[in-house]
Amino acid sequence: MTSKNIKPELPGGFRDYLPAETAQREHLLTAIRGVFEQYGFVSFETPAVERREILTGGDPEFDKEIFRVGLREDDEDLALRFDLTVPLARVVAAYPQDIVKPFRAYRIGKVWRGERQQAGRYREFLQCDVDIVGSSRLEADAEIIVVLVEVMKALGVEDAVIAISNRKLLNGILQQLGVTDELAPKVLRAIDKLDKRSWDEIAEELQSIGLDTAQIEELKKLIDVKNDTVDVVLDALSERVTDAQGQEGISELRTLAKLLRAYQAPDTAWRVDPTIARGLGYYTGPVFEIRIPESEVGSVGGGGRYDTLVERFSTKPIPAVGASIGFDRLFTVLQKKNGIAVEAVGASVLVLNFADAARDICIAVTQELRNAGIATEFYIGQEENLKGQFAYAVKRGVPVVLIIGDDEIKEGTVQVKDMRAGTQDTVKQQQVIAAVQKIIAPI
Amino acid sequence: MTSKNIKPELPGGFRDYLPAETAQREHLLTAIRGVFEQYGFVSFETPAVERREILTGGDPEFDKEIFRVGLREDDEDLALRFDLTVPLARVVAAYPQDIVKPFRAYRIGKVWRGERQQAGRYREFLQCDVDIVGSSRLEADAEIIVVLVEVMKALGVEDAVIAISNRKLLNGILQQLGVTDELAPKVLRAIDKLDKRSWDEIAEELQSIGLDTAQIEELKKLIDVKNDTVDVVLDALSERVTDAQGQEGISELRTLAKLLRAYQAPDTAWRVDPTIARGLGYYTGPVFEIRIPESEVGSVGGGGRYDTLVERFSTKPIPAVGASIGFDRLFTVLQKKNGIAVEAVGASVLVLNFADAARDICIAVTQELRNAGIATEFYIGQEENLKGQFAYAVKRGVPVVLIIGDDEIKEGTVQVKDMRAGTQDTVKQQQVIAAVQKIIAPI
Repeated sequence: MTSKNIKPELPGGFRDYLPAETAQREHLLTAIRGVFEQYGFVSFETPAVERREILTGGDPEFDKEIFRVGLREDDEDLALRFDLTVPLARVVAAYPQDIVKPFRAYRIGKVWRGERQQAGRYREFLQCDVDIVGSSRLEADAEIIVVLVEVMKALGVEDAVIAISNRKLLNGILQQLGVTDELAPKVLRAIDKLDKRSWDEIAEELQSIGLDTAQIEELKKLIDVKNDTVDVVLDALSERVTDAQGQEGISELRTLAKLLRAYQAPDTAWRVDPTIARGLGYYTGPVFEIRIPESEVGSVGGGGRYDTLVERFSTKPIPAVGASIGFDRLFTVLQKKNGIAVEAVGASVLVLNFADAARDICIAVTQELRNAGIATEFYIGQEENLKGQFAYAVKRGVPVVLIIGDDEIKEGTVQVKDMRAGTQDTVKQQQVIAAVQKIIAPI
Repeated sequence: MTSKNIKPELPGGFRDYLPAETAQREHLLTAIRGVFEQYGFVSFETPAVERREILTGGDPEFDKEIFRVGLREDDEDLALRFDLTVPLARVVAAYPQDIVKPFRAYRIGKVWRGERQQAGRYREFLQCDVDIVGSSRLEADAEIIVVLVEVMKALGVEDAVIAISNRKLLNGILQQLGVTDELAPKVLRAIDKLDKRSWDEIAEELQSIGLDTAQIEELKKLIDVKNDTVDVVLDALSERVTDAQGQEGISELRTLAKLLRAYQAPDTAWRVDPTIARGLGYYTGPVFEIRIPESEVGSVGGGGRYDTLVERFSTKPIPAVGASIGFDRLFTVLQKKNGIAVEAVGASVLVLNFADAARDICIAVTQELRNAGIATEFYIGQEENLKGQFAYAVKRGVPVVLIIGDDEIKEGTVQVKDMRAGTQDTVKQQQVIAAVQKIIAPI
């Protein structure tokens, strides 16, 4: 230990969440976890650190955003995970005996990305992931989308919409336009930005990528459908898309729509949008994104089918579909939108501590309340008088304060103060639990 | 994406926890969190990554075990946190307006240490930390110890013992022996190993550190107290220890013992043991460790008072006391000791899926059960016949299986199979929730 004074600051792109926000976050996470478990998903844990090759699949493109990890003298090539999907694929391949398929898995965990340092860009994220591995049926895709619909409902985001497309549709459209396989991923990434940028900006990007004016015009016509009912949108696309793979995408979207209706997902909770591409390269079928109107963020999550990712670690092809909720972004949106209602953070009762002679009785009352399941705090700070301890109670926002002084010991009583009502009662020591319960959980 | 096949293995010292173990872990964590919250502790979150200087306090000794983190082109000097206490100290100093003191904080989070690679040594740990910052009163130390006692009780570890000492007692003993300030930390670290090694081994280490035979003999006499009642142990130490700081340590231990009795911590749940030193340098007063007899591990957690750590980041001295539970080690001990009883992992009900015509009805029944709060899975795997899907139900250990085929659709019924009893009933579709509830929660 040195006596040097070190500035208590975080590195850029990392955040602390203090207790009030942490309680709000836990409240939301409990709701999300509840939906996942209702749908039969089970959770597992993988480390934050993986072999770099596992994460990147050998693709040097990934290295720009990946945080490397190492001891000074250590040669192992390690990195922090940048998503929860690659570790899932690794686990499925690593424990073939233990993982029964279809495997419904959820994970809530942190991931790290070396995003460029700028305001609002963060480098550590909490993700809530939900995946079905080992099923090529569209019912699996439908279940994942329905889970997202249910999560948004559970969080009270009534206007959230899951925008759905299919990589086969987009691939078919690009094929039809004569876009080369080399250019295709770049075009997809450009189109994917349509929720954040104007068509003119995207058109400019497409031009710089190498598309000609005719291709850009034609692309606009192909994907330009109104925000209309699913059937109208799919019919419009059917007329324009001639490519076989594109038609297969449309057909899958029709089946998916039927399934979503069977799952009773309300029509207002999802729509078809052919501009949904999802940045990541590994999607092979349906893709989707969670959009919250007027939230000023592109999406708070999304996912899709990735039938070839597990092959990275396995000789067998294993189909899979899943979604990821960007929890921090969602949290920020909900804070601004509705606020997040959480009951008192911390103890419900504070037992003051100012008369030495009363200390043992105060402790006994504290323990009695705790044993009765009431979160209770015994004041053990540096303030020695009533006034200072009350100021602490107010700052902490504790709903009930108990006072036991010399008089109360003599009489076997406790002063019970209802901090919200501002009232104070004297009760017999044996009645203190009942008196507290009446205040914190009024019937 | 590359088509290269990558071995799905973890780096040495890192672990996966599959769903069955994760459910057991969550079960224990919920119990631990419950006790922390009962005692008025609130949780907050800090990033996994911190500035290296924050973590080490500029002490190069730390660098051996610390995992560095960085982007290739990034110069910032970052590392993974190796405990949750330093980030707590940083937060207390960084947000003086938001953190009301005394601050009762708990955190459950991962930490990383570059332990030497060998069997049973891990590099990623889950810690459960509980601290009180801003109180120099021994009531705070007592509360932390009582929380540990209650956690062990909540986990059903009836024979756990919190072994308690005081750094002032040990410092006084070393003073009395004429051990130099330079040697003292090394001697403390050697003594701290007494739970894992014999006295002869420790004596050898003390000799190699630089203590002479007389000092070693005298040290043995001073700390050699029987595993007796607290008062007998403290009386024995009182007689032998003449140093003023040592006497202060004994006096604090006497007060702490009185407080623990006021808190109703049973005498069997804690004892005084002068050999408890705790490796870390930052402890300044009471220190303690959780011992589980016959567990073959030294301790599953511990802590103490660290009145100077927060000063690293602040100009003001801020007293603090806290403990850390090494969750992974505790988990392993409990698995071996009592087992960890967790109900079915995953869905309670599996709806089979083998007749295309029944698909929409199967989905409707699935959603109905989920809406009723029953975790339900709709079979969407690759097995198309009853036998294959039943095999899946058995492997997954699901307690109830529902079958809806052509006959059932015609009759408006559902076959309800109780997998544990091996019985099967035909019920009307409207009665399916009641029939399932009867099986999974028998009254």
